[in-house]
Amino acid sequence: MPERDLHYLTELAGQLRVDSVRSSAAAGSGHPTSSMSAADLMAVLFACHLRYDFEHPDNPANDHLIFSKGHASPLLYALFKAAGAITDEELLSFRKRGSRLEGHPTPRLPWVDVATGSLGQGLPVGVGMAMAGRLERLPYRVWVLCGDSELAEGSVWEAAEHAGDEGLANLTLIVDVNRLGQRGPTRHGWDTGAYARRFGAFGWHTVEIDGHDPGQIDFALGDACNTRRRPTVILAKTRKGEGVVEVENREGAHGKALKDPDTAVAELGGVRTLTVDVHRPEFMPQPYRFDDGPLTLPEYEPGTRVATRTGYGEALAALGAARGDVVALDGEVADSTKTQEFAKAFPDRFFELYIAEQQLVAAAVGMQARGFVPYAATFAAFLTRAHDFIRMAAVSQASIRLVGSHAGVAIGEDGPSQMGLEDLAMLRSVYGSTVLYPCDANQAAALTAEMAGISGVSYLRTTRGDTPVIYKPGERFPVGGSRVLRHTPADRATIVAAGVTVHEALAAADELAAGGIPVGVIDLYSVKPVDKAALTAAATTTGNLITVEDHRPEGGLGDAVTDAVSELGPRVVKLAVRGLPGSATPAEQLADARIDRRAIVEAVKRLL
Amino acid sequence: MPERDLHYLTELAGQLRVDSVRSSAAAGSGHPTSSMSAADLMAVLFACHLRYDFEHPDNPANDHLIFSKGHASPLLYALFKAAGAITDEELLSFRKRGSRLEGHPTPRLPWVDVATGSLGQGLPVGVGMAMAGRLERLPYRVWVLCGDSELAEGSVWEAAEHAGDEGLANLTLIVDVNRLGQRGPTRHGWDTGAYARRFGAFGWHTVEIDGHDPGQIDFALGDACNTRRRPTVILAKTRKGEGVVEVENREGAHGKALKDPDTAVAELGGVRTLTVDVHRPEFMPQPYRFDDGPLTLPEYEPGTRVATRTGYGEALAALGAARGDVVALDGEVADSTKTQEFAKAFPDRFFELYIAEQQLVAAAVGMQARGFVPYAATFAAFLTRAHDFIRMAAVSQASIRLVGSHAGVAIGEDGPSQMGLEDLAMLRSVYGSTVLYPCDANQAAALTAEMAGISGVSYLRTTRGDTPVIYKPGERFPVGGSRVLRHTPADRATIVAAGVTVHEALAAADELAAGGIPVGVIDLYSVKPVDKAALTAAATTTGNLITVEDHRPEGGLGDAVTDAVSELGPRVVKLAVRGLPGSATPAEQLADARIDRRAIVEAVKRLL
Repeated sequence: MPERDLHYLTELAGQLRVDSVRSSAAAGSGHPTSSMSAADLMAVLFACHLRYDFEHPDNPANDHLIFSKGHASPLLYALFKAAGAITDEELLSFRKRGSRLEGHPTPRLPWVDVATGSLGQGLPVGVGMAMAGRLERLPYRVWVLCGDSELAEGSVWEAAEHAGDEGLANLTLIVDVNRLGQRGPTRHGWDTGAYARRFGAFGWHTVEIDGHDPGQIDFALGDACNTRRRPTVILAKTRKGEGVVEVENREGAHGKALKDPDTAVAELGGVRTLTVDVHRPEFMPQPYRFDDGPLTLPEYEPGTRVATRTGYGEALAALGAARGDVVALDGEVADSTKTQEFAKAFPDRFFELYIAEQQLVAAAVGMQARGFVPYAATFAAFLTRAHDFIRMAAVSQASIRLVGSHAGVAIGEDGPSQMGLEDLAMLRSVYGSTVLYPCDANQAAALTAEMAGISGVSYLRTTRGDTPVIYKPGERFPVGGSRVLRHTPADRATIVAAGVTVHEALAAADELAAGGIPVGVIDLYSVKPVDKAALTAAATTTGNLITVEDHRPEGGLGDAVTDAVSELGPRVVKLAVRGLPGSATPAEQLADARIDRRAIVEAVKRLL
Repeated sequence: MPERDLHYLTELAGQLRVDSVRSSAAAGSGHPTSSMSAADLMAVLFACHLRYDFEHPDNPANDHLIFSKGHASPLLYALFKAAGAITDEELLSFRKRGSRLEGHPTPRLPWVDVATGSLGQGLPVGVGMAMAGRLERLPYRVWVLCGDSELAEGSVWEAAEHAGDEGLANLTLIVDVNRLGQRGPTRHGWDTGAYARRFGAFGWHTVEIDGHDPGQIDFALGDACNTRRRPTVILAKTRKGEGVVEVENREGAHGKALKDPDTAVAELGGVRTLTVDVHRPEFMPQPYRFDDGPLTLPEYEPGTRVATRTGYGEALAALGAARGDVVALDGEVADSTKTQEFAKAFPDRFFELYIAEQQLVAAAVGMQARGFVPYAATFAAFLTRAHDFIRMAAVSQASIRLVGSHAGVAIGEDGPSQMGLEDLAMLRSVYGSTVLYPCDANQAAALTAEMAGISGVSYLRTTRGDTPVIYKPGERFPVGGSRVLRHTPADRATIVAAGVTVHEALAAADELAAGGIPVGVIDLYSVKPVDKAALTAAATTTGNLITVEDHRPEGGLGDAVTDAVSELGPRVVKLAVRGLPGSATPAEQLADARIDRRAIVEAVKRLL
C-alpha cells in the first residue's frame, strides 16, 4: 500500500476515533472505547472496499453493512459523517431526544437496514441478506461487524453453520477482537486462533490480522472479496479504546463517555475534516422478476373438516404462484406446518433453515430488507426460541410473517413441550404486531393472503387437527375484524373465541339456546388489532362476555378482549389453559383444560 | 467383549426396539423409529456404564441421563421397564390420559430430572448439572442423548463452548446420528466428521463410532469416563428405524406408529423379558455444606435514592452469606445487573456464562435439579432470548429465579434494543410463574430474599436508575401482596402501579389531591400472583382504576389488573408504552410514553 494511502487511512481512522469521543462526550454516554477498537477496520472498509451510494440507499447494487455490535454506534455515525451523509452538527445530536442517531442504530437512518443492539443478531440477519442477494443475482456484498463477546451467542453459530453450508461467499464477518467485554475479559481474550478453529470447522475461510494495521486490513478485505464458495471471517486483534491512554486496553472502560474528552481528542491528533469517498456502484434495477399473477386461493367445502395449517400451506403455494416476491422459510418442520406445499411448487424460493429458529426469523428479517415477502413457519411453541429476534424485528420496523402451527392443548398426545400456549402473549406484546388466529381452512387461506400486505411483524396461529369448515370460500377477513356467528336481540351473554375454541363456542351456544339461554358467539380471528366496535357492541348489549382460548390465561385472547372493553366495565369471564397438561387426546385435552363446550356452558350458567 | 455379553446386549437392544414399537402401537402415535436408532447406544449405557439407583432416584451419587431427543420417549420408557422401574402394563399406557409416560418425558417420572421435547435443550441443561457436580464434588456423570437434527440449534453450541472451555469431563454427549430429521435428511447426513470437527474446535474429545456395534459403543462410553479435563462427544452413526424393513433408514417414517407392529415385533425377534441390572452406586449423602446462617439484608434509608438493581445485588450477596445453596449466574452483565456484589463475595458460587442467555437459563435449570437455588440475571430485554428455555423450565417444574434489569423506557438514552418492554408478558404467561417488580431498594432486597423460597419460575424486574426509597428497611412484601400507598374514603379513582411508575403515581396523586381530586395509589409489586383482594376493594369502592406500567400494553401489569377485576366490571384505563421509543433521557422517555405523572393526572381527569 502506498505511503500516501496509508497516511490517509490512519488519519481517517483517527478522525473516526475523535468523532466517536466527541459525540459520546456531547451525549454524556455511549460506547467510545468499543468504537475506537474498530476504527481502522471500518476506515479501510469505507475507503477501499465498500460499494455504497449514500445518496441512493435504495440502489439494489449497494453493499449492506450491519453493525452487529450496535453499541459502537458512535463509530457508525462518524463514518456517516465522513461519507458526507450527516453533518457534524447532527453527529453531536447523538443520543438526544428526537435525534436519528440513537444509542444503537435503527432504520430511522436510511443507511441502516436493521436495528442492532441485541448482540449476536447481525450475522444471522446478514445471512438472510446474503441469501437474498443470491436469489436476486445481485453482486452486492454483506459486511457484518461484530464484537468478540457476542460470539458466545448460539445464534452466531446457527448463522455460521448456515452460511458455511450454503457457501455464502458474498458474506464477510469482521470480528473486532478487542479482548474486553462489558464486565471483563472475554473467554478467549486475544486468541483469534480459537475463533478461527471454530469458524474453520463450520466451513468458513478465516483470516487473522492485526486490526490496527491498514495494510493487513486491506489485504483481508480483498481476500474476502476474492474468496469463492465460502464466507470469510476476518478475526482482527484490536485494543479497546485504542489511541487514548486513559482507556486503552483497560477494564472498566466499557460503555462510558471519556472523562477527559478534550485531552483524548488532542491525544488522537485533534479534530479533522477528512471525507471518505465510498465507491458508488452503478444504479442497477432490481433484476429479480416479481411477476404478479392472479391469486387463486384454495377452496374448502363448508361442512368438511380441514386443518387450518393446510389452509395456510395451500394458500401460501397459491400466493407463491401469484407473487414472485414471496419466499418461505422453514425450521425443518415444513411437513407439519404445511409450508411443504410451497416448497414443492417453488423450491427456489423455499429455504430450509433446519432446527434453528433464531436463524429462521433472522433470515426473514434479512430477506425483507431486500424487498422480499417472507413467511417463516415452525411450531408455535418453538417460535419462543426466536423471541428476541422477533422483538428486534419490530425495532427494525421489519415486515415479516410468522406462522406457528400446533397451537394449544388441541395437539393432543404430544404433551406440553410441543404445545404453543404462550405464543399469543409473546406476539401481542411485540410493537406494531398483527396477530391472527383462524378457525377454519378458508379463513386461514384468506388471512394467509392478507398477511402479504401487512407491515410489521404479523403472526398466523394454526391448529394441528382438522376443524369444521364453517365459512364459504372467497369470504374476506380483514385485519381488525371479527365475525358474529350467533346473535339474537335476546342474547344474555356473548362468547368470544378464536381458532379451535370457535367450534366449542358454537356447540355451547346451540346447547344453551336449546335450553332457553340465547347467547351470542364472536369469532375473534384478529386478536391484534382487535375489533373494538364488535366487542363494545356485545359488551354494551349483553354486559356479559365469556372468552375462551387454547392458550395460557395471560396475554392472549382474553386479555385482548378485557383490554378492548376495560373502559366500559362489562363482566368478563375468561376460560383458558390454567394447568400443566400431560398426554391425552385432543378432546380430552380441551375438556381437562376446561375450554370445551361443556366448560363454556357451565361458565355461562355460572355467570348468569 | 465376551460373546455372551455381546449376545445379551444385542438381545436387550432388540427388546428396547420391540417395546418402543409396542408402546407406540398401543398409543397409535409416537416416535418408534427415532427410538430404534438409539437402542444399542442406550442398551450398552444401561448395562455397562450408567450408575443409577432406580429405587432411590434422590441418591446424590446417581448419574444423570437427559434424553434431549425427548421424542425418543418410547426408548426411555422401554429402558425404565428393563430396569424394573415400570411394569409392562404401564409401558403400554404410553401417551394415554393420566399416564406418567407422556409423549415427551417430564419429571412426573421420578427418574426424569427435566422435561425435554424442545430440541437442543438437553445439552445446555446437562452443562448446568455437570457444573453442579463439580461444585458438589460428587462423582456422578451426566449423560445426554441427542439427535443429529438438533445440533443445528445455537443453544447446543453455547453449551459446547461452555463445557469445552470449562473442561467438564463429567459430561458426555451421545449423538444418535441417524441421518434423517423430521422432514428429510439432515444437513450433514452421516458425515460424523463434520460434527467431530465442530466439537473438536470447541475443545471436546470426540469419538466416531458405529452406533449399532455394542463393542464400539462400550469402548466409546468407557473412553468418555476415562477422559480428563474435557467433555466427550460420541458421534454414533445409526439407522433410523433400525431392524424393521418397513421403516429402516427411510424418509417419511418420522413420528408415526408403525403400520404393521406385529410383523415389526416378529422381525425384531419377538417380545423378550430381559432385565438390565444397572450399576447401583453407594448412597452418598450430599457432601456440599449448605451452612445456613442468619440473613442480614442491606438497609436503605427512606428518602435517599437507590436503584432497585442495587437492592437486588446487595441482597443476593447477603443471601449468599446466609445460604450455601444459593448460586448466581451471569450473562456477562453482572456489573449492570449488580450480581457483581455476589460475585465478589462468593466467587466459587458465581458462574459467568458470557453472552449466552439460553445457556444462562439452562444452567440454572440444571443446577436446581441438584438442589441448588439459582439466580440468573441479565437485562430484561435479553431474557427474551431464553424464552423457550423458560417455558420448558416450567414444564420441568423447575425452581429458578430470573432477574431482569434495565426494564422499560426508564433506561433512557440506550434506546429500544436495550429496553425490557415485553418481559412481564413473557414471564406472566409461563405456567406457575411468579412475577415481582419492586419500586424501591428495600422492597427489592426483601423480594430477592423471598424468591429463594418460591417454587417454579420466579422473576424479579429491576430498574436501572436510582429511585426514591419509600419503604423502611425490614418491611415484608409477601408474594401475592400489594401496598396501598394513598387512600382516603373519598377516593374517586385508584392508580395501580409498580416499579418506576409507583413514584410517578405518587406524584400524580399528590397533585390531584392538591387540586381537590383524591385518588388512591396501590403499589402492585406482585404482578403474578396478583392481590385480587386489594384490587377488588379498589374496584368496588372507587369503580375507576388507572394502571400505569413501563411495559407494552399487552400482557403486563394492566392486563393483570383487568383480569383480576374482570368479573366485577370497573372502568379501567391502561397507561403503557405504545410507541417505538428512541433515545432520550429517562424523564423524557416516561413523558413521551405517557406514563409519567402528567399523563397520569390527565388520564384521571379524563376518566372522571
